Amino acid sequence: MSVKIKHLNLHSQTPLSLEEYLATRTAGVNRALDRFLPPASAKPATIHRAMRYSLFAGGKRIRPALCLAAAAACGGDEADALPLACAVECIHTYSLIHDDLPAMDDDDYRRGKLTNHKVFGEGIAVLAGDALLTQAFEIVAQCKGWPRYSHQRIILELAQAAGSLQLIAGQVADLEGEGNKISARHLRYIHERKTSALLCCSVRLGGMSANCAPAQLKALTEFGYNVGLAFQVIDDILDVTQTSEKLGKTAGKDTKAQKATYPAIIGLERSRRIAKRLTQRAFNSLKAFRGKAVALEALAGFLLRRDR
Amino acid sequence: MSVKIKHLNLHSQTPLSLEEYLATRTAGVNRALDRFLPPASAKPATIHRAMRYSLFAGGKRIRPALCLAAAAACGGDEADALPLACAVECIHTYSLIHDDLPAMDDDDYRRGKLTNHKVFGEGIAVLAGDALLTQAFEIVAQCKGWPRYSHQRIILELAQAAGSLQLIAGQVADLEGEGNKISARHLRYIHERKTSALLCCSVRLGGMSANCAPAQLKALTEFGYNVGLAFQVIDDILDVTQTSEKLGKTAGKDTKAQKATYPAIIGLERSRRIAKRLTQRAFNSLKAFRGKAVALEALAGFLLRRDR
Repeated sequence: MSVKIKHLNLHSQTPLSLEEYLATRTAGVNRALDRFLPPASAKPATIHRAMRYSLFAGGKRIRPALCLAAAAACGGDEADALPLACAVECIHTYSLIHDDLPAMDDDDYRRGKLTNHKVFGEGIAVLAGDALLTQAFEIVAQCKGWPRYSHQRIILELAQAAGSLQLIAGQVADLEGEGNKISARHLRYIHERKTSALLCCSVRLGGMSANCAPAQLKALTEFGYNVGLAFQVIDDILDVTQTSEKLGKTAGKDTKAQKATYPAIIGLERSRRIAKRLTQRAFNSLKAFRGKAVALEALAGFLLRRDR
Repeated sequence: MSVKIKHLNLHSQTPLSLEEYLATRTAGVNRALDRFLPPASAKPATIHRAMRYSLFAGGKRIRPALCLAAAAACGGDEADALPLACAVECIHTYSLIHDDLPAMDDDDYRRGKLTNHKVFGEGIAVLAGDALLTQAFEIVAQCKGWPRYSHQRIILELAQAAGSLQLIAGQVADLEGEGNKISARHLRYIHERKTSALLCCSVRLGGMSANCAPAQLKALTEFGYNVGLAFQVIDDILDVTQTSEKLGKTAGKDTKAQKATYPAIIGLERSRRIAKRLTQRAFNSLKAFRGKAVALEALAGFLLRRDR
């Protein structure tokens, strides 16, 4: 990827490439997460090692990057969004640890590394997930705050996005859907909750940290929702069209696991049309920022115009 | 128990017995929890049924009662403490669901009912715990607030008490200690975290909802810490001295599971002395309330002067 993003680095005149942008943001988020979490040596060391093992397992930090980019789009300082970006990443990581458990997706590897329960055992993996979820709220409660949006409001957003009607609902529906024939509408319900809810929350929190106006919040919500859904449809498409080698993970895994996917339910062509429409909607919602959402646009391009 | 508690019912001249007090508070907490949680029919119904199954499984509501009583001791309105009492109970219930999992204590029954994973399966049980933990923060973020203590402060208290250095640390240490020889000091570390942390948090939050002064908060902290620890030591003692019939659960279970207990480590007599000392300390800390902590005192008596 060689797209140059003008003014992406707010403190420099030199345009940054998307790789450089993502690399600097990932480094900043990693440093902040390291500061927010108890050290690996804190007693009991096992739980802190387990939390850090998954949190620093090489995640792409998509949600934090979107959160910071949303803050920038609203004219805010990325530093004010950083704790929120970290809180969202803690929640994302907790959900992956629990999803990988034998009682759920039963995965031994994630991003080429052993999953948490394969290294630390199931009991500690459950607790490490619990601890990261709790940590997310502690991180938000510890930061200094924002003029327009209260801690109360921010924590409500986060709890609702992660709760039993959103993120957890998605996981439950996914779990219950396995092996069953489900409708396109129900698959959309799952994707909206498993992916869009937290993605949408990331950009909303970024905007809120920048004291965004209601219209900006609305635009960010539409953007987050559509990016999340489009991302998931594209993921489903790539699973059937690409080779394992190119994906860096087992291709056709969804089909094999009898997981419902867009191509399986409505066919490849219609899935492609839906992905295109959602992508278009995501980009359209950024028009409200009149050219200030450069980083958000580049990130959406990275997520939605990929071939693996 | 036939202790009559004068002025326990703040809105009536008739003194209430402790049973009546607990019954009215439990009913109030149950009604509030029912209001705060999504209905059992909310999609996906499985998760909401699972959350409610454990939340309404006949728990004694000790922590909520302590929270409300602490508010009353500080001259506050119990209604202001009610959402906090519910949040603490959600966290307590989540921790029980996860503790009962096969990867942890592997319990099939709790209070004579099948444990969550025995009814809903392990996957849903993990998610129901996750959802209740998340719900706790949502409940706090949804309530109107208190003049002296911000939502931020209250949520920080709750997250820290439930986090990897407190409640979860206790569970981890307990898990790692099983079958190993541990010191009395380490056992105290476990009990402080598994029991005292959330108990202490309950009374502190009750006080905070009543805009308590720093000295009152300190007294409540000491009370909660000592009640929690004493409760656990007494539990250990009863496990070796009472029959299963009287306890209503399997006596000698700890010894059988090679769980470290106070009597096993330091002997029955020393354990009794410690329990007595902690109990005394708990009652002493209530002197700061000059007779206004009637309900707290009665609850402590109920918890610490029991024979089952």
